[in-house]
Amino acid sequence: MRHLLLAAIAVAAPVHAQDRNDTARIMDEGLAHSQVMTTAQHLTDVIGPRLTNSPQMRQAEAWTQAKFAEWGLKNVRKEGFDFGRGWWINGSSVRMVTPRPIQLTAIPIAWTPPTQGTLSAPIIVAPMKSARDFAAYRGQLAGKIVLVSSPGTGSESTRASFHRYTDEELGKVAEFRFPRYDPAADAKVLREADFEKQRDAFLKGEGALAYATISYRDGKLVHGEGYMFEAGKSPSLPGVEIAAEDYRRLARLAKTGAAPTLEIISDVRYDDSDPQAYNIFAEIPGTDPKAGYVMAGAHFDSWVAGDGASDNAAGTAVVMEAARILSRIGVRPKRTIRFALWNGEEQALLGSLAWVEKNLATRGGPNDPPLVGERRYYEWSKRWPINPRPGFNDLAAYFNVDNGSGRFRGIYAENNPAAAEIFRGWMAPFNGLGMTTVAIGRTGGTDHVFMQSVGAPGFQFIQDPLDYNSRAHHSSADTFDHLKEEDLRQGSTILAAFLLNAANADKALPRPPMPTRPAVTDPFAYPDPEEHN
Amino acid sequence: MRHLLLAAIAVAAPVHAQDRNDTARIMDEGLAHSQVMTTAQHLTDVIGPRLTNSPQMRQAEAWTQAKFAEWGLKNVRKEGFDFGRGWWINGSSVRMVTPRPIQLTAIPIAWTPPTQGTLSAPIIVAPMKSARDFAAYRGQLAGKIVLVSSPGTGSESTRASFHRYTDEELGKVAEFRFPRYDPAADAKVLREADFEKQRDAFLKGEGALAYATISYRDGKLVHGEGYMFEAGKSPSLPGVEIAAEDYRRLARLAKTGAAPTLEIISDVRYDDSDPQAYNIFAEIPGTDPKAGYVMAGAHFDSWVAGDGASDNAAGTAVVMEAARILSRIGVRPKRTIRFALWNGEEQALLGSLAWVEKNLATRGGPNDPPLVGERRYYEWSKRWPINPRPGFNDLAAYFNVDNGSGRFRGIYAENNPAAAEIFRGWMAPFNGLGMTTVAIGRTGGTDHVFMQSVGAPGFQFIQDPLDYNSRAHHSSADTFDHLKEEDLRQGSTILAAFLLNAANADKALPRPPMPTRPAVTDPFAYPDPEEHN
Repeated sequence: MRHLLLAAIAVAAPVHAQDRNDTARIMDEGLAHSQVMTTAQHLTDVIGPRLTNSPQMRQAEAWTQAKFAEWGLKNVRKEGFDFGRGWWINGSSVRMVTPRPIQLTAIPIAWTPPTQGTLSAPIIVAPMKSARDFAAYRGQLAGKIVLVSSPGTGSESTRASFHRYTDEELGKVAEFRFPRYDPAADAKVLREADFEKQRDAFLKGEGALAYATISYRDGKLVHGEGYMFEAGKSPSLPGVEIAAEDYRRLARLAKTGAAPTLEIISDVRYDDSDPQAYNIFAEIPGTDPKAGYVMAGAHFDSWVAGDGASDNAAGTAVVMEAARILSRIGVRPKRTIRFALWNGEEQALLGSLAWVEKNLATRGGPNDPPLVGERRYYEWSKRWPINPRPGFNDLAAYFNVDNGSGRFRGIYAENNPAAAEIFRGWMAPFNGLGMTTVAIGRTGGTDHVFMQSVGAPGFQFIQDPLDYNSRAHHSSADTFDHLKEEDLRQGSTILAAFLLNAANADKALPRPPMPTRPAVTDPFAYPDPEEHN
Repeated sequence: MRHLLLAAIAVAAPVHAQDRNDTARIMDEGLAHSQVMTTAQHLTDVIGPRLTNSPQMRQAEAWTQAKFAEWGLKNVRKEGFDFGRGWWINGSSVRMVTPRPIQLTAIPIAWTPPTQGTLSAPIIVAPMKSARDFAAYRGQLAGKIVLVSSPGTGSESTRASFHRYTDEELGKVAEFRFPRYDPAADAKVLREADFEKQRDAFLKGEGALAYATISYRDGKLVHGEGYMFEAGKSPSLPGVEIAAEDYRRLARLAKTGAAPTLEIISDVRYDDSDPQAYNIFAEIPGTDPKAGYVMAGAHFDSWVAGDGASDNAAGTAVVMEAARILSRIGVRPKRTIRFALWNGEEQALLGSLAWVEKNLATRGGPNDPPLVGERRYYEWSKRWPINPRPGFNDLAAYFNVDNGSGRFRGIYAENNPAAAEIFRGWMAPFNGLGMTTVAIGRTGGTDHVFMQSVGAPGFQFIQDPLDYNSRAHHSSADTFDHLKEEDLRQGSTILAAFLLNAANADKALPRPPMPTRPAVTDPFAYPDPEEHN
């Protein structure tokens, strides 16, 4: 694969002499004088996890602005959007008391309420996946800590937890995937999201005292994601996620003997001082006020089990470091270069969506009711028509960073072959650093999605996976230790070069066509009865 | 390799018709009516970790005897040996309070004293590897929690954490390793063991309040091994092992800002009700009182971070299940079949060594001072002469199980080629279950070692590694989840068959020659100056 790409690069447009010189200066500043790890260390070790609207996120909002200003960026500012409550963990403990004392590995679930001191109660194992399952447990839950997950059995990965792409695997990443559209798929996800609320109401109605879920990873890792963040819609019951090994032990003991008793201390706190969350922006102003702007972004919010290192202090530090590099070498680009740190990404890409709605386009007709909470993620892109804002065409290119700490191996061209050709030229100086692959197709799941959804040119890089999916993503192991210095130096250097290329190009990147309503992939399918469960 | 071995099996001694019939009955009982997982579940989930002389170990001593008796075994008994203190964890918590609150993953170190309620103090990072390092920290430790390990950097394994041997790897396991003897090697280990005591005295003298070490595995696993178990020699200071990610965060914070403050609660308890530890024995009596006995054994003590599942509820359950199988099918062997559950293995193979000294042989001259504690492990086998006991030749074969939950893939013949030929015949019925390999050479580290050391025929099986070394061994993840049912059924079935073959063989297994003083491998080596550190 690598040889084919090098051949393609040879016929790409020649790079301007001026660009070559800038690229060399970017490489010197980004590879030999990097501050990316210092930035990442402050975000992770010193500030810590940055759950949207938590006190630690407020620190991050202030510190990132101060850093941008210190580095000479202009128009440093925060822009608010409606979010919900802040929440943080002051301390917590989950302990099995009977049949024997053991300290369990567990974490409070985000936005659940605190226990009042120590909550002591027996468990009941009552796996529930839909409201249909409530009947089986009615009348049995009063005074109990309810284990709502199926315990299952342990699983052992036969793949290494840490991995870099081989050339063959990079080739597979670049394979084009046929677009698929199934209108029922998101409905199922939304039913599951609603079920979290139904279950909370059911448990409260039954007089249960708390609930516990099982970690979805073995090896004593926990995560603690929760989604009931809106004001006035907090969960009724304290909830904890228990490590898989510990959860299954409880379930086996309850099956073979008397139900174990737990002591839960969940010393968590709400912070309702400000319902708004804030995106952070900073700029290097362009010399041509009519040429529009290019932008790089990363979400800087995180979950709370670790320090939000791979997800996404890594991407945040890379974007901030690209800003520092370009400011340090004193570029004066034709187009403005803007840097964005998104908030509320972990809940539903809420920060970038708020920005898209304000700056690029709205979706839907005048009579569509407003979308709130997670529904915005699943339903926004299904509304028609797309209504572009006046500044829609000013965004010449957006580059998102949110795939962990792994080095840049390529970029997704997001169904834009004309842009792909140009990217091949831009990445040529970095082939020797492992940046070799352009995938024509799309990738999803992060803050460029709603830009693509309205036809704006948003892109995301291909990165080595490292241990992102195997153990770091959202977990208690997502700490600074799992960041890789050379990878982050490489990524921030390449990002700076891409931004400057995009900002200085004579012609803006070719834009994608405006999106059209997708065709249903399989019009002959019948609904699956299980879907109604 | 497998083909070579099958060829070897074809020329091995034919199996008696009686043995074939017994083997079929053993396979039916062991593979289709197994209780091995029920036994393992009780040892791990219900009893939990079994630190020598802890209350949980006392439960295990009673429960295993009751089970042997329930299954119809004879001469069920416990035999004591001098050990030291009991110790257990009632609860614990390590929390960083400043610069921000975070619950750390940590565990009290075995046999350290409790904190008096909550101990709050700033940390100081003071890595020490020998008494030479004390000078650098003198006068700085009063009132501090001392982080005594070098933080290092994170490491990521590029190998899968769960693995079964390929045929090629089994071939490598079977490769003969040249014996090596370096008299200085153990001296270094003993200096390190002594250093634990010196460091404790130094920290106490300086007025430090507690100490912390770093976990030797990444991924938020902890272990908590400690060796100051002798009565009157307990550590002075509370000690905790902190997860690698959490420890390194503390170290980075202390390097870049004010020293973090910790709150440590170590609610640990000593139990001095009985300084003796107990090995457990049970038998199926032989029909020929002059034919001696064969024996299978596994240590049933463990560390405390997990439930001692892979190490070594697995081996314990396999040995107990072999006893149940043979009792259930009503064998009447020529030689007595004895089952041994060893205690104190994790500290220095102390249980099996006590038994060897009492039943097989002593070592050393009349003027050699007694060896105590860990020194027994390192120095006992270096004493000469070997003084056999009257019953020395009665032990016809000993099979040890202590390599985790992995299925049996072969056996180490321990430098006994004549036994190897016989093992090839015994394993023939189990080739299709993956049991194919005889390694002529030795393996160490567990309870057959001191039998080999005095020239008795002790053997250990080759087992699939699974996740034993990667994450289960001694760690907080060593729970029932990491045991594999089919593997344990296979192992207990094969062990039962081996025992019955050894018990009924017309001639006892060929014995190894008596050990001789080893020759120094490299008589031209100079001592390494680092050794004196």
